[in-house]
Amino acid sequence: MDLWFTERYPQGWGITFKIERSLYSGKSRYQRIDVLETAGHGRLLVIDGCVMFTEADEFVYHEMLTHVPLFSHPNPKRVLVIGGGDGGAVREIVRHSCVEEVVLVDIDEDVIKVSREFFPSVSCELDNPKVQVLAEDGVRYLESCPPKSFDIILVDSTDPVGPAVGLFEKPFFEKCFRALKRDGIMAAQSGSPYFQLDLVGRVHRTVAQVFPAVRTYIAGTPSYGGLWTFVIGSKNGDPAQGPIREDQLAVSDLKYYNYEVHKGAFALPNYILREIGKQEK
Amino acid sequence: MDLWFTERYPQGWGITFKIERSLYSGKSRYQRIDVLETAGHGRLLVIDGCVMFTEADEFVYHEMLTHVPLFSHPNPKRVLVIGGGDGGAVREIVRHSCVEEVVLVDIDEDVIKVSREFFPSVSCELDNPKVQVLAEDGVRYLESCPPKSFDIILVDSTDPVGPAVGLFEKPFFEKCFRALKRDGIMAAQSGSPYFQLDLVGRVHRTVAQVFPAVRTYIAGTPSYGGLWTFVIGSKNGDPAQGPIREDQLAVSDLKYYNYEVHKGAFALPNYILREIGKQEK
Repeated sequence: MDLWFTERYPQGWGITFKIERSLYSGKSRYQRIDVLETAGHGRLLVIDGCVMFTEADEFVYHEMLTHVPLFSHPNPKRVLVIGGGDGGAVREIVRHSCVEEVVLVDIDEDVIKVSREFFPSVSCELDNPKVQVLAEDGVRYLESCPPKSFDIILVDSTDPVGPAVGLFEKPFFEKCFRALKRDGIMAAQSGSPYFQLDLVGRVHRTVAQVFPAVRTYIAGTPSYGGLWTFVIGSKNGDPAQGPIREDQLAVSDLKYYNYEVHKGAFALPNYILREIGKQEK
Repeated sequence: MDLWFTERYPQGWGITFKIERSLYSGKSRYQRIDVLETAGHGRLLVIDGCVMFTEADEFVYHEMLTHVPLFSHPNPKRVLVIGGGDGGAVREIVRHSCVEEVVLVDIDEDVIKVSREFFPSVSCELDNPKVQVLAEDGVRYLESCPPKSFDIILVDSTDPVGPAVGLFEKPFFEKCFRALKRDGIMAAQSGSPYFQLDLVGRVHRTVAQVFPAVRTYIAGTPSYGGLWTFVIGSKNGDPAQGPIREDQLAVSDLKYYNYEVHKGAFALPNYILREIGKQEK
């Protein structure tokens, strides 16, 4: 049987994967979750019909969401992840030996369960003793935690539809700012420059209203249509200057991130610069 | 009618475009050529079933193939394009006011004709008085031209199947080396890091056997599955150091290339570095 799963983006294009079989299909309180075995990319996680990641290339997104902010901070000890119930960001965070505590808050406990069952190479550090996993609303968690609780906040959300809508708005970024310590850094996925370019610009400008230093950076993510953006807001210093800490142990294990890639990721094509309101140079 | 064109890569994945209608379908002496009107990406050129470009994003590939080598050269006057019968590279080359002469050699005159008819925004500079268009074999042309004829050679080929096979081999790069002047630079498309990673590595190592300085660089090309590589061989100097010439007039018209992007394009993810035999740092 020649079975293909196709995610169709707006503007009449999409990406398609050859599928061996369906491993799981369920509806959580918040969203539909599917796990598919692909022919060439390992297992594929699909939420509400959108590709979340494949085993073959999830490293790009998870490494770049995590290591750019963590290597931009002098001494990250307490890290909060909002969303990211699959555990991929957590796996990358605990590579940094300076990190003492990670709190993962995902609203959908079924995502966490599905990842534990079907994606052991992604969820593998969720039981690390440094990691606390909470299935609750990330926004409420932020509201209830004391100010200046975290060195790093990563926003590892789905697209801005359904439960994740609020994670792209100014009040949410203000709550992140409040929960960050003096040198704190927030990083968030901010959409595709190909089919969500308006979102990329809007999120950048919104974060710029809250944080003194804001930057957008990019990575090459095949399963998300090729290129993805992240926005980073810093209370102290410009993350585009490159890593400010050496941790060769972490980098030598990685498949995407290195110190040159860190700096290069902030070199944005003109069409993205123009959208976020910056001048090319 | 819900019509979709899908290019399926090896490893069971691909990219798909919603199609309004077919504008042209023909068989040249060398290959099958199709022009499709897409729903969201303007017109699409397909050769032997492979996406060549869409009007919406051809700027990425053509700007990056052209401006990285041209801005790495102190004073490019004579430029040779092998392949590239569509004219996209030529359009970018003539933005540089220092360029005096461009020779385009494409083996397939039907590609040139189809581009003139269906892609006026791409082929628009083929009639520029600085440009000479030849429908002949690029390898033979190189063999017959005097040594040290060109400042820049761009290899704008199709995939290494059919007529383009020889354009990825050492004897071809040696002919390019011979035809380049003392400060000469060659740049070539070298495949997808997602579905042709072995090709990326092989071409890099082959060019390194011929040129004293070799670098691989990347750009985010949605229609080619998201990321593309180029290899650059230089007789003099490292192109990764960034542009060595200012030409603000050219850059301000561009949609992708700028001087930061030039430098950032050489920051390769670890998985590509390992394939081309370099160490991450």
